[in-house]
Amino acid sequence: MSLVVMVTIPPERAHDVARTLVTERLAGSVNVVGGMHSVYRWQGEVAEDPESLLLIKTTGERYPELEARIRSLHPYEVPEIIALQFDRALPEFQSWLRDALQDRR
Amino acid sequence: MSLVVMVTIPPERAHDVARTLVTERLAGSVNVVGGMHSVYRWQGEVAEDPESLLLIKTTGERYPELEARIRSLHPYEVPEIIALQFDRALPEFQSWLRDALQDRR
Amino acid sequence: MSLVVMVTIPPERAHDVARTLVTERLAGSVNVVGGMHSVYRWQGEVAEDPESLLLIKTTGERYPELEARIRSLHPYEVPEIIALQFDRALPEFQSWLRDALQDRR
Repeated sequence: MSLVVMVTIPPERAHDVARTLVTERLAGSVNVVGGMHSVYRWQGEVAEDPESLLLIKTTGERYPELEARIRSLHPYEVPEIIALQFDRALPEFQSWLRDALQDRR
Repeated sequence: MSLVVMVTIPPERAHDVARTLVTERLAGSVNVVGGMHSVYRWQGEVAEDPESLLLIKTTGERYPELEARIRSLHPYEVPEIIALQFDRALPEFQSWLRDALQDRR
Repeated sequence: MSLVVMVTIPPERAHDVARTLVTERLAGSVNVVGGMHSVYRWQGEVAEDPESLLLIKTTGERYPELEARIRSLHPYEVPEIIALQFDRALPEFQSWLRDALQDRR
């Protein structure tokens, strides 16, 4: 089972977090979508902020470790971390993803 | 069960609809992705337009009301409203989402 | 069963591929998200590139043909092709999608 994990993050932190997750083999790839504007409810009020979106490709097996790492890197008290499962994908991509997450020490 | 609802919309309407959905507690948060270009089939022809994408976070419970509201706010005859289910998410985010959708009257 | 298929692609190829897929009735609509930056692992190293994201709306039935066509159009050795299933959507949108994929020869 593979996952696309969606995480919203302040634009100035997006690149560093993306690079860290791939470097530590918690993700095979991360796309950073910039120029996003977010509207949300916080402490009863409607708030707005510029944000970036991370689209993180990983496996279900790696997810708990990935979630904990994002939690530790993310500046928000409650970061938005949402995992969407995909069952169909190019088989060569699935193989590549498993390989990219494998530790080579 | 929680949902990410994807809606494409003319750029000039995106912010107002996003703010309305959060204000009316039909969504906990909405990300507006701008600068998108869409290609689609309409009345047999291939058409193209600039659009924005709304990524709307809500619950399955609130979905019918959300869908009806988007329908009433949206300028298209057939708006693209697609709901993706997520089962894994940061637990604190799930709690926050339920809370953000709760009426406090 | 309907799908949102996510494909990352070099920005200069995004529009042509999007238009081809709609013209050939392999997709009802394709959104091109530009200005994306990607971090990924390739041949053991961490690499980075600007990319665009295609969000392709199709049916499960059409998916095998769509995947094969993307494979033939895409410049990468291993393109990222990921299909997310959606069960809830505006019913009129679902009808439109089925219609847009139907051959009228």
